[in-house]
Amino acid sequence: MIPRYTLPEMADLFSDQSRYATWVRVEILASEAQARLGLVPADAVADMRRARVPLAARVAEIEKERDHEVLSFLAAYCEDIPDASARWVHLGMTSYDLVDTALGHTLARATDLLTAAGRRLRRVLVDRAREHWGTLMVGRTHGVHAEPTTFGHKLAGYAFAVDRSLARLAAARDAVAVGTVSGAVGTYALIDPAVEAYVCASLGLAAEPAPSQVVARDRHAQLLQAVAAMGACVEQIALELRLLQRTEVAEVEEPRASAAYQGSSAMPHKRNPTTSERLCGLARLLRGYATAALEDVALWHERDLAHQSVERVILPDGLAVGHFQATRAAELVAGLRVHPGRMRAALDATGGLVYSSAVLYDMLGDGAEREEAYRSAQAAANRTAASGRPFADTLAEEGVALAVEPGPGRFLGHHDVVLRRLEKLDELED
Amino acid sequence: MIPRYTLPEMADLFSDQSRYATWVRVEILASEAQARLGLVPADAVADMRRARVPLAARVAEIEKERDHEVLSFLAAYCEDIPDASARWVHLGMTSYDLVDTALGHTLARATDLLTAAGRRLRRVLVDRAREHWGTLMVGRTHGVHAEPTTFGHKLAGYAFAVDRSLARLAAARDAVAVGTVSGAVGTYALIDPAVEAYVCASLGLAAEPAPSQVVARDRHAQLLQAVAAMGACVEQIALELRLLQRTEVAEVEEPRASAAYQGSSAMPHKRNPTTSERLCGLARLLRGYATAALEDVALWHERDLAHQSVERVILPDGLAVGHFQATRAAELVAGLRVHPGRMRAALDATGGLVYSSAVLYDMLGDGAEREEAYRSAQAAANRTAASGRPFADTLAEEGVALAVEPGPGRFLGHHDVVLRRLEKLDELED
Amino acid sequence: MIPRYTLPEMADLFSDQSRYATWVRVEILASEAQARLGLVPADAVADMRRARVPLAARVAEIEKERDHEVLSFLAAYCEDIPDASARWVHLGMTSYDLVDTALGHTLARATDLLTAAGRRLRRVLVDRAREHWGTLMVGRTHGVHAEPTTFGHKLAGYAFAVDRSLARLAAARDAVAVGTVSGAVGTYALIDPAVEAYVCASLGLAAEPAPSQVVARDRHAQLLQAVAAMGACVEQIALELRLLQRTEVAEVEEPRASAAYQGSSAMPHKRNPTTSERLCGLARLLRGYATAALEDVALWHERDLAHQSVERVILPDGLAVGHFQATRAAELVAGLRVHPGRMRAALDATGGLVYSSAVLYDMLGDGAEREEAYRSAQAAANRTAASGRPFADTLAEEGVALAVEPGPGRFLGHHDVVLRRLEKLDELED
Amino acid sequence: MIPRYTLPEMADLFSDQSRYATWVRVEILASEAQARLGLVPADAVADMRRARVPLAARVAEIEKERDHEVLSFLAAYCEDIPDASARWVHLGMTSYDLVDTALGHTLARATDLLTAAGRRLRRVLVDRAREHWGTLMVGRTHGVHAEPTTFGHKLAGYAFAVDRSLARLAAARDAVAVGTVSGAVGTYALIDPAVEAYVCASLGLAAEPAPSQVVARDRHAQLLQAVAAMGACVEQIALELRLLQRTEVAEVEEPRASAAYQGSSAMPHKRNPTTSERLCGLARLLRGYATAALEDVALWHERDLAHQSVERVILPDGLAVGHFQATRAAELVAGLRVHPGRMRAALDATGGLVYSSAVLYDMLGDGAEREEAYRSAQAAANRTAASGRPFADTLAEEGVALAVEPGPGRFLGHHDVVLRRLEKLDELED
Repeated sequence: MIPRYTLPEMADLFSDQSRYATWVRVEILASEAQARLGLVPADAVADMRRARVPLAARVAEIEKERDHEVLSFLAAYCEDIPDASARWVHLGMTSYDLVDTALGHTLARATDLLTAAGRRLRRVLVDRAREHWGTLMVGRTHGVHAEPTTFGHKLAGYAFAVDRSLARLAAARDAVAVGTVSGAVGTYALIDPAVEAYVCASLGLAAEPAPSQVVARDRHAQLLQAVAAMGACVEQIALELRLLQRTEVAEVEEPRASAAYQGSSAMPHKRNPTTSERLCGLARLLRGYATAALEDVALWHERDLAHQSVERVILPDGLAVGHFQATRAAELVAGLRVHPGRMRAALDATGGLVYSSAVLYDMLGDGAEREEAYRSAQAAANRTAASGRPFADTLAEEGVALAVEPGPGRFLGHHDVVLRRLEKLDELED
Repeated sequence: MIPRYTLPEMADLFSDQSRYATWVRVEILASEAQARLGLVPADAVADMRRARVPLAARVAEIEKERDHEVLSFLAAYCEDIPDASARWVHLGMTSYDLVDTALGHTLARATDLLTAAGRRLRRVLVDRAREHWGTLMVGRTHGVHAEPTTFGHKLAGYAFAVDRSLARLAAARDAVAVGTVSGAVGTYALIDPAVEAYVCASLGLAAEPAPSQVVARDRHAQLLQAVAAMGACVEQIALELRLLQRTEVAEVEEPRASAAYQGSSAMPHKRNPTTSERLCGLARLLRGYATAALEDVALWHERDLAHQSVERVILPDGLAVGHFQATRAAELVAGLRVHPGRMRAALDATGGLVYSSAVLYDMLGDGAEREEAYRSAQAAANRTAASGRPFADTLAEEGVALAVEPGPGRFLGHHDVVLRRLEKLDELED
Repeated sequence: MIPRYTLPEMADLFSDQSRYATWVRVEILASEAQARLGLVPADAVADMRRARVPLAARVAEIEKERDHEVLSFLAAYCEDIPDASARWVHLGMTSYDLVDTALGHTLARATDLLTAAGRRLRRVLVDRAREHWGTLMVGRTHGVHAEPTTFGHKLAGYAFAVDRSLARLAAARDAVAVGTVSGAVGTYALIDPAVEAYVCASLGLAAEPAPSQVVARDRHAQLLQAVAAMGACVEQIALELRLLQRTEVAEVEEPRASAAYQGSSAMPHKRNPTTSERLCGLARLLRGYATAALEDVALWHERDLAHQSVERVILPDGLAVGHFQATRAAELVAGLRVHPGRMRAALDATGGLVYSSAVLYDMLGDGAEREEAYRSAQAAANRTAASGRPFADTLAEEGVALAVEPGPGRFLGHHDVVLRRLEKLDELED
Repeated sequence: MIPRYTLPEMADLFSDQSRYATWVRVEILASEAQARLGLVPADAVADMRRARVPLAARVAEIEKERDHEVLSFLAAYCEDIPDASARWVHLGMTSYDLVDTALGHTLARATDLLTAAGRRLRRVLVDRAREHWGTLMVGRTHGVHAEPTTFGHKLAGYAFAVDRSLARLAAARDAVAVGTVSGAVGTYALIDPAVEAYVCASLGLAAEPAPSQVVARDRHAQLLQAVAAMGACVEQIALELRLLQRTEVAEVEEPRASAAYQGSSAMPHKRNPTTSERLCGLARLLRGYATAALEDVALWHERDLAHQSVERVILPDGLAVGHFQATRAAELVAGLRVHPGRMRAALDATGGLVYSSAVLYDMLGDGAEREEAYRSAQAAANRTAASGRPFADTLAEEGVALAVEPGPGRFLGHHDVVLRRLEKLDELED
């Protein structure tokens, strides 16, 4: 995993030691189910429960010789179980009954962590959107001033995007929260389906309906796609904050980690949007993982192993990076310093050009021909852009008299329709 | 679009001419709504309805000069509308109110086409899975014979994967079937939200809850992710069919387009799985489109245009390729020639090694120590593999006496649990 | 191919008709070589030369039945060749001897077109870098004003990046400009290597040293990687121009295609950097193609066909999009309107903060302790940023007296070292 | 980094501690150069040389507060330098003068490690290609038996692919082995270019010709593209070995790590090509890194930081995974057990069908019309395929009499032309 971009709870979840603990849990559950069927002695199950989770170092030691992680785990686990009981461990199972069922459980929990971070982000976006619902600023398209909007409107858009990301994540959680205990080619050859039913139910998992040796890999691809899509939505937020922190704009500012903040080793005046930049970068990593996951879907026959080396990296790293990114994004938005004065000033900076759509609208309403009206307004706008003179004046030169000089209020008359939609998000559980 | 991999219905849906027809429809609907609000004269709406959809060639001609597709379309459209009415066209709207609402409509219809193809594929997989539920064959893991399964079981796995793909596609359809008629920065500045409500409802679309200038792009990314994920599931099927058509395996054979089939210009004996190979390749294209779509999510402020050149390619091509691929896959599976005799022979080809798991299971059941039992069985298996002698004989040499010589039946005792799960798919609407 | 992003010369090169013309050429060359070896009658070669290139429509018609493009082409070609001669066509060859050799030839020519576009771009970047070598502007890091640079310096960086892109492209051209005429599995089983030598030499191609049935696919991946890397370098330029065209910056402006320019259907004042935005988008497409190409490298045994459906799309589209993008970028830079006054004004906009590195440097030179000096300068800078008061004043409040107030000149004393490096690019052939 | 797929020498090279050691080296070199210019006292340089490389743990501790790695490193480094000397550290430099120059040095060394692994792989491929130059086997296209080749021929193809990969890597090494010491926006504002010249020369690096704040990122993209391309070539080898190890083929076998080898927890008979499978998976990771690297090329203005979080992952992981993969591939090929008997048997398994191209060739040589000859040979081949009867017999039924029954020798008459090409690789330095 990537220490710099992994928070402790994810690191813990994906550690070797946690994996072996989950594997032990699956083995015990399977044996309990076999015991209910009368196939494994109760004493053996008791011995398995009593045995310690093998240490990752011990498994690694055995694996050097055997080159097979599950067999090495089983050998290490059985070192703490009397021989008479040890022979009942893993009865009728194949390695991936263990690996994939445990993986389903771990991925479900990892997705829960990411979901919680995503909900915090949705919450803080909704809250700050409401706080700044009326904070006027210029809307920009193509990087160019367009017409008035509010900072709250902008944040509302991101809140809905995160909300959709959470829906994708919920669907992906359903997809990966599955296990299988069905033997070497998924036919329940030497194992009663009741074992699978017991194990999966105990772990909160569904059963793979037609297993091969493994759980189908489109499930994992869907999860990493959902993570990458949430990453892209966070990237959108972070990109906006970078744009709004440019020197010429300076409408918001990132919270600083500490008073000791230094932006540059050479230039003492620098205040850089480094958190936002970092969050943008992480979205690129997540895209790479999603693509690799898609290549893992098509397995040879009942399974090959090519996906495994990929998954050992992209599943923990993808979830950890996504979780880190969403968590930091929530902190960033929560602590963001907003400068309404700078925002208001930008609206006025272009001599009224940002009201040109209303001017055109009124000209058409007054009976002007569309192309002609457009050309007049455009000519005036060009002169204002070149000279800095007020748009009202250059319009007058084109023979366009404004009944009322438009202002931002004109543009926000219907704006609360969006607020009412946002209120539905506000009621959602965090 | 890619003629070779685009079926006519998709080509039609994404043609320039279809786009302009949808744009005209959106303009008319918006004007109808404005007329209800008393803002546009009924006569003007009548004129708009009467006007022809502008020809793509005419729009292209104007676009050469204006470098803006929507403005060129509007100019071309208005050429067939009296001036007095033309000035009411597009009232209070911005270009993307038109573009994105129409796009939402088109993508919903394209997704419907793909969904129909996916359902046909699910249907044929379910049918053939049931047909071959009992067709014995060897299961292979890592490309190596493992233990018995059936061809029906294999197909059932693919049916479930396609079923999940359809669920992802349905969610993605919901995500993209949205429109917006909310003006230059999504604030409904010069347009009543009732217009949007009317237009979207008429087109079967939801409204973007907090629009910027455009509909959010994580929606389109989700769609292409779903298409790529279905593509990967089709790739899995096609890969399997390629593997099963290898000379040494020859357990199935692709249907041939015609009696005139020739596999190679040089080698008259060749019969190549070219359809399956082609379907695998197309999955790679789809992955590339999904990644590009993710890069399109983060727009500058209320929107930039960088996503547009990408979408002009990946949306039509992605949907067309996915649709072609699913359609051809359904035909391939439907026409697949299956050779149960070859399948059965493969089970017997390794002297009984494919029953080794049952042997080991029984040894453990008889009280053997796990490691020791494994080593004996492995030693016998290695001798069988090297010599071709029956596994039963080499096991005997290790002192392992088989009570009953295992056969495929031993492995399929619980197999019907999967069939019962499959029956639920069978009941689904095609 | 993608009409909107394909220029005519690329469209022509990759048309079906051009492909068949090249195939005919390869067949004739191979037959000429066979005739020299005495294996094919001279009359037959003469008949082949006389025959028309088959029409794409005719090949398509046959292909519907045969499902094999090369065999259909051969059938169509032979329709115009007397039977006695026709049987010598394609002697000892396999389909891909034809396909891949012709492809090598086409890709070399396509790469030449892209290279020419890249050279034009390098040329215009060098020219405009020299033109604006002394045009002062603020350098920005993290989007925040840093310290003075010049517009020429910036362009010089892009010129070098394009120059490296051309080097990558040249290496990739070498990699793909290969052919093979070596039979069904590349062993020259039924064909003398002299045929290959003759064909490849005639077409300006090297021979694949150890062919399978096909030319190795890492070659094509290298080409699309080089195209994507050039695309990313163009994206860098276009991104810069988008940033510099933001309303608040407005230091440059895109040339407008025509006086009829309209930026927005709703807002007559808009002037959008749409060309730059489009160029950014195209880079995303190119990345998707490069990834797909890498998936095509690993073929089954002597070849499988999965790469073919991919290549039919990504090779023509990748080269066409790259060529379009580089061509438009050269036009954009050539026609770019630069506003030195706006650039100069930005330098002064922050009260001298952009000179903070020189201030710190001088403080250290005067014996100050590093951390302490940094803190003083930072405190002054923060006050200037908050209040707009001159940096010299806030520094004085911190007890920092400036010997000389720094100006841009201070920062460009060594700047010509870069110009001398640029001069080497200037001497390169376009 | 990824412990499981990182060999110790790469882990060491990319450790935090190694990075800080290189940073110290760059600071000392820069100060030496400044001392030569008379700008830094010799004593200060001596103090810098004397100071310890700061411990990663100490840097991390400071970074928690400052959120800036370089400033934290400098603070930690200066803790061991007297104040009077410490203030000369980093004079006139900006953080990335340090970071990127050190990175150039590290990447050059990492590329050297990967190159060495690639050369070992090329060597072993050449050696084994020569060893098996005459080892007959069937060539397969589309997974279907085609005609005879040799195992050596196959390996020769891979040797050339690795050779091309090494050429790409060498070009990429040139691209990344650059440094810059040019200040905050790359204009050498406060630093003499002689410093850069000295530092870079001492480290074996070229200087970035027109730096921004950083070294251009297309260089790093080129490196990861080259690594991914080598990865795809290794994938090709590994894929072939997986295909050849399928039960039905069994023409080669992976070396086993130890006598304790167990292939499956459930099936004692299993011998799985797990190393080959793993190598295939790693190629997918490398593709993901290359795509992310391309997204890093386009920086904002003189640089933004979004690339940094990406590079912290993909540069060490990409090089480590590539190095691991190439190293293991060389071991795999070196230890590969080859079964010439199985290979020979496959040639004979289809009753002579693999000679069909020679039969067709001879029929044409005897004056047959092409289409007709093809149809006869195809009809015979189909009957042989269906019945298993010898191709000679079914041909006879079609009225085709073979003058000489063809055998593998017929197909390898020109084969040594490839061997002579291979000999050139054999002479290359490992």
